Amino acid sequence: MSLLVVGSVAFDSVETPFGKVEDALGGSATYFSIAASYFTDVQLVAVVGRDFPDKHIRFLKKRKIDISGLQRANGKTFRWKGKYDFDLNQAHTIDTRLNVFASFNPELPETYRNTEYVFLANIDPVLQLQVLRQVKNPKLVACDTMNFWIEKKPRELKETLKYVDILTINEAEARELSKESNLVKAARRIMTFGPEVIIVKRGEYGALMFSDSGIFSAPAYPIESVFDPTGAGDSFAGGFMGHLSRVRGVNDRNIRQAIIFGSVMASFDVEDFSLNRMKRLTAREIEDRFKEFKRLTVFEDL
Amino acid sequence: MSLLVVGSVAFDSVETPFGKVEDALGGSATYFSIAASYFTDVQLVAVVGRDFPDKHIRFLKKRKIDISGLQRANGKTFRWKGKYDFDLNQAHTIDTRLNVFASFNPELPETYRNTEYVFLANIDPVLQLQVLRQVKNPKLVACDTMNFWIEKKPRELKETLKYVDILTINEAEARELSKESNLVKAARRIMTFGPEVIIVKRGEYGALMFSDSGIFSAPAYPIESVFDPTGAGDSFAGGFMGHLSRVRGVNDRNIRQAIIFGSVMASFDVEDFSLNRMKRLTAREIEDRFKEFKRLTVFEDL
Repeated sequence: MSLLVVGSVAFDSVETPFGKVEDALGGSATYFSIAASYFTDVQLVAVVGRDFPDKHIRFLKKRKIDISGLQRANGKTFRWKGKYDFDLNQAHTIDTRLNVFASFNPELPETYRNTEYVFLANIDPVLQLQVLRQVKNPKLVACDTMNFWIEKKPRELKETLKYVDILTINEAEARELSKESNLVKAARRIMTFGPEVIIVKRGEYGALMFSDSGIFSAPAYPIESVFDPTGAGDSFAGGFMGHLSRVRGVNDRNIRQAIIFGSVMASFDVEDFSLNRMKRLTAREIEDRFKEFKRLTVFEDL
Repeated sequence: MSLLVVGSVAFDSVETPFGKVEDALGGSATYFSIAASYFTDVQLVAVVGRDFPDKHIRFLKKRKIDISGLQRANGKTFRWKGKYDFDLNQAHTIDTRLNVFASFNPELPETYRNTEYVFLANIDPVLQLQVLRQVKNPKLVACDTMNFWIEKKPRELKETLKYVDILTINEAEARELSKESNLVKAARRIMTFGPEVIIVKRGEYGALMFSDSGIFSAPAYPIESVFDPTGAGDSFAGGFMGHLSRVRGVNDRNIRQAIIFGSVMASFDVEDFSLNRMKRLTAREIEDRFKEFKRLTVFEDL
């Protein structure tokens, strides 16, 4: 099974209380692809500039990610500069340079168009829909977004959401999009926009999934040394969609396991800057941490 | 089995975005006792003034709480006035009148002194220790505290913690007490002060338990209409200690179940102002919600 993602490939300069990196590999589609590549075949749609180095291409290829949809445009690669204080749940953007991303016009290679599992990472909802329209017969469409699009393109976002099955969204953004302060009410309201499943991401507090089957609560893995939360949400989505694509059945049982796999991938991501932890991550470690999540949450029936 | 609690019995005036109450029954020992009374026999140690009405006494007696340790002093009952905004995790104190609590000198009735399960609710650590010294052979001692004591009486608090097995503490307070921003490190540091088990309360994000057996994460029950979070922490402690006192075995299995029962009691508490929800709560509802916590957290092994 394969899994298509459209999003950003970027250079991130990040500072946290524990260190900093400059022009490190980042971007929503990158984090997503690398995480998902442990579970399924990934097809990447994004754009980079002429300054994008071969070593990053080699890293993506080494993870067997299909990059025939990665455009190379004249100009510079998208750059993001941000900072985290001790409250690692909150990113503070210092600078954003869209560069080649400003004129991104996603075109799917012919080989991508029959893909059934699609993730629309956090980009302009107009582009998200443009990508989705090129997929012939999507079986499962998940989507991420952010406060910027909720505020600047609410009509376009709602149009895209009509075609989305699963929305992943931050807690504050769920409240903003739904105009409901209570999270249960917020999720129910967002469901009326289209998605049948709402996954609310809560950073170090884990994730809550709302669907017709009920509510599922997953903790975050308690980590002693969180170095850099950048990419945690996209790594979560990568593990989540990667597992669903692997098992090919979208039901409550699989969605719950997929949320745990998403949480596992996010927990590894934050252990180091950029994608450094992923570069040395093994399938065995993923399985072991899945089991640790079981141990972390299990209690006996009465 | 019986369970002793020392703490406050108070009148609370509380305003939330969903309404308000004035001079309603409150206090840490009250919330704790009522919640614990669904699980075990409770012995209450506290002080009230001459203005404390019979109807509240009748309510405590109806829940079969032993109030022979409830002193009645000349003066007025402790009063607290507070406010919650839409962020219901954060109480804003408007006014505190200690009244008879200012000269509280807890004396245990003879019938209390053989009790094996003890909860020291959030009061001056000097008083907590004074109570504990009157218990002949405590088997399990749990304790709560707050930022006020961490800042004003750090030495006394640490002296009390030497004799405490389980500490329940808010997230921010755990960081303040340990001087560690990371929660895993904070818990480990606090363990060196005495307690073998640290339960970090995170409001709507649930609770995290740290012990030598590992970490256990319990969610909060997602509630559509949170009316008043006052007393949630003490209701949690009441369900938690109540269950442990009932099953009489302090091991990892029972502690995990006890945390779920604590979370169940906290979830009911916040559904109405003061102790109003508890007045109509049934044992069957508690059992049903315990099962809902299972459904909320369960996922299949690989």
